[in-house]
Amino acid sequence: MSQTRPTAVNLFWAIERMRSTFNREKALTQDVEELKRKLVAEALAIFDEDISANRAIGRFGEPLIPDGATVLTHCNAGALATAGDYGTALGVIRGARDAGKRVAVIADETRPFLQGLRLTAWELAKDNIPVTVITDNMAGHVMKEGKIDAVVVGADRIAANGDTANKIGTYMVAVLAKEHNIPFYVAAPITTLDLSLGSGAEIPIEERDSTEITHIREHQLGPDGVAVHNPAFDVTPSHLITAIITDQGVARAPFQASLKKLSDLKGNDVSA
Amino acid sequence: MSQTRPTAVNLFWAIERMRSTFNREKALTQDVEELKRKLVAEALAIFDEDISANRAIGRFGEPLIPDGATVLTHCNAGALATAGDYGTALGVIRGARDAGKRVAVIADETRPFLQGLRLTAWELAKDNIPVTVITDNMAGHVMKEGKIDAVVVGADRIAANGDTANKIGTYMVAVLAKEHNIPFYVAAPITTLDLSLGSGAEIPIEERDSTEITHIREHQLGPDGVAVHNPAFDVTPSHLITAIITDQGVARAPFQASLKKLSDLKGNDVSA
Repeated sequence: MSQTRPTAVNLFWAIERMRSTFNREKALTQDVEELKRKLVAEALAIFDEDISANRAIGRFGEPLIPDGATVLTHCNAGALATAGDYGTALGVIRGARDAGKRVAVIADETRPFLQGLRLTAWELAKDNIPVTVITDNMAGHVMKEGKIDAVVVGADRIAANGDTANKIGTYMVAVLAKEHNIPFYVAAPITTLDLSLGSGAEIPIEERDSTEITHIREHQLGPDGVAVHNPAFDVTPSHLITAIITDQGVARAPFQASLKKLSDLKGNDVSA
Repeated sequence: MSQTRPTAVNLFWAIERMRSTFNREKALTQDVEELKRKLVAEALAIFDEDISANRAIGRFGEPLIPDGATVLTHCNAGALATAGDYGTALGVIRGARDAGKRVAVIADETRPFLQGLRLTAWELAKDNIPVTVITDNMAGHVMKEGKIDAVVVGADRIAANGDTANKIGTYMVAVLAKEHNIPFYVAAPITTLDLSLGSGAEIPIEERDSTEITHIREHQLGPDGVAVHNPAFDVTPSHLITAIITDQGVARAPFQASLKKLSDLKGNDVSA
């Protein structure tokens, strides 16, 4: 399983936690059924912790979203990508809604897999949060028109200095947000932080199959034999990030210090 | 016909030219067949002029493309969008190739209509110019990786101050190019210039049907009832443009003066 997604770190964190539970319990019992029960209990604990982590992300993040704001998000960092019904980036939006604020969302469709159109639009509409889908290349235009008040995205892995790997296109959105002086927030559980990596340059980027771009299901979109480049993630340097919203509080620049503090001390808004 | 594309100006220019030919010739003859022949001759003249304009764009633009360069382009400003076999943005690339330079292209797929994947990739491959397609949201990532040496795009309408309307997503590419210090060139015939507009703020942006985003042909891509915003064009402010390559020469900032000079005097590289 750890071969599947080289970029995402909290999958590895969960695998490692299950592995160490197995090793610890194996030393304590010969009973296979007992061992199974312990592993199931650990998996359910991870599930519950994920739910409460996302609720905490929503609580810590909602003060950053003004009443009446329109928030742009990329990909799906919502209920469909996490345990429970809240999500990380969408957890911040739901946190604002639950705090009584009016909030609307513009969702990038997120090529090639269209998670924005297929997942984010679906789950927000079901939650009665107004959502409008745009193609990824419209993000700059809607920002220039003054339609976006904040950007909130998820994260697959965060390096010690705050550089953040997330779904391809996130970096583009961050550059555009900076150009338009729009705050750019990353929302992720603290387990997404990988202190073993000094910077985003060390995060591996998964290259995926070209047919993800050239086809939609069986339907071929263009001519035969088109050469394609398909990196699944990109890295947003921390200087483009206004704040990183975690389940342990909100980190701001300099991120090296603030993220370490959240990781160690489980504090609140750690502006340095 | 002039109701169809509010953003593109040289379509209107051609319609107007045919209309004034009709009015002029109508005053000179009662013979309907003679009138038809005059109109066909005028249409063929426009066609020939379009071909030589694109060759001239290629000649004026090719010195801006270094040997061995990789050029990013957006949408299709090639042979399939113009008369002849050269194009405007792709005319510059073909001009570099014809000047003996090695040149490769990275083509944004260009949602929602996928002109990059369907047209640009097809016509460049047929011409043996190496071309790789990316989704629009990968443009920032490939620039950050140092893979792009220049950007060349077409234009639907250029205001007197150089602000340029082109296919949606062009503005995003221009912002990304600036962030990475990559030259950003617009290639278009001088007939694309609309001196009646002071700036890009006056260029109307066509909003198109939502099904262009939610469907590919009959195939529905996401859930029912998704709200969509679908502007077909955006405006790139001239401060993001390195140069505008026309059939009358290359204009540089300040564009107000240099574009006027090209329009009036049919000069060469008009740097002010």
